[in-house]
Amino acid sequence: MSADLAALVTAIAQRARAASLVLATTPTAAKNAALLRLAELLPTATDAIFAANQRDLAAAQENGLTAAQIDRLTLNPARLAQLAESVRQVAELPDPVGEELDRTTRPNGLAIRRLRVPIGVIGIVYEARPNVTIDCAILCLKSGNASILRGGKEIFHTNTALAALIQQALAHAGLPADAVQLIPTTDRAALNTLLKLDQYIHCFIPRGGESLIRFVTANSTIPVIKHYKGVCCVYVDRAADLAMAEKIIVNAKTQRPGVCNAAEQLLVHRDVAEQFLPAAARALIAAKNVQLRCDPASAAILARAGLPHTAATPEDFSAEFLDYILAVRVVDGLETAIATINRDSSAHSDAIITTDEKAAQRFLAAVDSSAVFWNASTRFNDGFEFGLGAEIGISTDRLHARGPMGLRELCSYKWLVVGDGQVRG
Amino acid sequence: MSADLAALVTAIAQRARAASLVLATTPTAAKNAALLRLAELLPTATDAIFAANQRDLAAAQENGLTAAQIDRLTLNPARLAQLAESVRQVAELPDPVGEELDRTTRPNGLAIRRLRVPIGVIGIVYEARPNVTIDCAILCLKSGNASILRGGKEIFHTNTALAALIQQALAHAGLPADAVQLIPTTDRAALNTLLKLDQYIHCFIPRGGESLIRFVTANSTIPVIKHYKGVCCVYVDRAADLAMAEKIIVNAKTQRPGVCNAAEQLLVHRDVAEQFLPAAARALIAAKNVQLRCDPASAAILARAGLPHTAATPEDFSAEFLDYILAVRVVDGLETAIATINRDSSAHSDAIITTDEKAAQRFLAAVDSSAVFWNASTRFNDGFEFGLGAEIGISTDRLHARGPMGLRELCSYKWLVVGDGQVRG
Repeated sequence: MSADLAALVTAIAQRARAASLVLATTPTAAKNAALLRLAELLPTATDAIFAANQRDLAAAQENGLTAAQIDRLTLNPARLAQLAESVRQVAELPDPVGEELDRTTRPNGLAIRRLRVPIGVIGIVYEARPNVTIDCAILCLKSGNASILRGGKEIFHTNTALAALIQQALAHAGLPADAVQLIPTTDRAALNTLLKLDQYIHCFIPRGGESLIRFVTANSTIPVIKHYKGVCCVYVDRAADLAMAEKIIVNAKTQRPGVCNAAEQLLVHRDVAEQFLPAAARALIAAKNVQLRCDPASAAILARAGLPHTAATPEDFSAEFLDYILAVRVVDGLETAIATINRDSSAHSDAIITTDEKAAQRFLAAVDSSAVFWNASTRFNDGFEFGLGAEIGISTDRLHARGPMGLRELCSYKWLVVGDGQVRG
Repeated sequence: MSADLAALVTAIAQRARAASLVLATTPTAAKNAALLRLAELLPTATDAIFAANQRDLAAAQENGLTAAQIDRLTLNPARLAQLAESVRQVAELPDPVGEELDRTTRPNGLAIRRLRVPIGVIGIVYEARPNVTIDCAILCLKSGNASILRGGKEIFHTNTALAALIQQALAHAGLPADAVQLIPTTDRAALNTLLKLDQYIHCFIPRGGESLIRFVTANSTIPVIKHYKGVCCVYVDRAADLAMAEKIIVNAKTQRPGVCNAAEQLLVHRDVAEQFLPAAARALIAAKNVQLRCDPASAAILARAGLPHTAATPEDFSAEFLDYILAVRVVDGLETAIATINRDSSAHSDAIITTDEKAAQRFLAAVDSSAVFWNASTRFNDGFEFGLGAEIGISTDRLHARGPMGLRELCSYKWLVVGDGQVRG
């Protein structure tokens, strides 16, 4: 890559680090002032944004993007108003910085406190969604982190226009301009440089498909928080309330199939399979014509009931369909369900439906997933639904943050130790 | 590398993953039973351990290791008794697994709890210290994690003998043999394979020198918790109690200079430099003949006082000496001290000595280090001193754990959600 590009990216990272030291002690009021100013600007500075968005949309047409892809790129007054509302909501959330996590006084008199502090500099790499530019910038800002944003080339002009508004909002509140920076190129070489700047950047969050996340993970010397796929399972126990189970599997599968907490697999205890499966199949087909990919036992039951289904391949039982498709199997008991889920799910969100508290407690304890549900839809694994107020994603990592990541999860902590001259003996 | 070696290492990781699912719900009593059995075995099973240790020591002599290196490899009855005692102490610590971190009930009635759970499988790669084998095995076991240990070749036979004792202890308590596994080869290719097995291993902790840590970080697709160097600073403010400052810098520099929380740099406010520096220099020289590497201002003061010193190079001001050497400079005020430390320290442990509370609070807030001290020695940044009961290291990362890592920091968490049929609208 060119030395110029490397120097440009390195300078951005250095300036972000300097800004992060200012942000770390910036009062909540100043951060909120910037956010509220941005919320004012978004629905009003529409000329510049729509002109930039049109350039991206024209290129998208030219490059033959699908209608769905183009829709995701598109900004309109309603979407800007929605973005502004989400900025206002983040301004209203409590500031996580400075929260005391614990305190202790040691026998030697040292008073030790652990306080929440920003991580420092966070790099975000993402694909073609303009809302991610705003979401990530505001969540990092509120949590006192400097951010470096690197969006997809399909949305480059729109992002540039949005970044200009963010700059106005930062200036309005007297915050450093380098608190939020957009990488001014979509050259992949710039990303490669960025991923090695571990002396300035403390964390990377890729937001996008699995291949993007794997690329970042394989090439980064900076810690990465990953948001991989969700292969989520619903297990209907022998002691399930079958009407509740039917309602939950229909919701978990069909309410929004394209997201990571949608169910991809149904496991049914053999004692209730004969009764439950035909009813569930009818409901799933009635709701969204869900295609059922069945193991031999469940296929036999649906065949006897004269209901449509196909034979599952082995891959179907660890697939993230993100579509109106569901893998189905019959299991011989709770322990098999647990072992199957721990082997084949992606440890994201898994549910048991049962009235048997002992079975439920065993499932909650033994299923090794970020969120485990008893008698509720997997679709609730979400920062808003869990009460975090906002989320930057749902971590599939086990270090630092697991499951929904809100403002707290964008923070680190530090130890403050106060003595009166103690030395170590 | 040979396919056999790759298959061997992969099988170890798969078995560790299976064992981790058992450990995740293993009661505290069983984990403690294994630990207490190990504590009994260590001081008694001496024949096998000393025979193995002799093989390593003979090879070390042959390979020309230094006396200090050989000493670190050596096990004797006193050291085994000490190891046994540390195992007993970990058995006595509270079990972090299952601790409730928070709970909430959402407006829709969902009851959400966040519970501490083990991370899963932890890989440890370390150099030639047999105590690390025991330390890491017991901390991972107590926190419910399966561990894969890969020690240095210099200590291979000793580690193999220690691992056999651990196996006996696990069997005694009915725990899976694969809960603690030693990689049975020191071939570097095995490590390279291990670092890519992110489907089975959830976290890597390298314990050793910077080059080992950098190698692991650059080659791993598994999250790594790093324990880099400590370039720790002590700032003596204009309002310092100078007698206290002298005592603290002598302790921070000389009490144990080879560790990461020892001070490497002294910053003195110019208003007290003339008075403080000669006294501090005399004390440091009297204590351990500390070599002072000075900036021009501090050099001039020491020259006038007729005290030995050398001119610092620019590198000295970001160096980890791990020796009786101290970089010294005069700063023109608190903000310069803070900016200097944030630029040149390694963000590990930094201290201010002052009687001015306002200055101290500003320093505590603005110095971006894992532990910030007011009127106490940097040497206290340590898991035992902070009350964690034990530590696996001092993290220089900002994600997951920062500063001392005890049992809690070897854990992740999961979300347990209990409903009565809730679906998402």
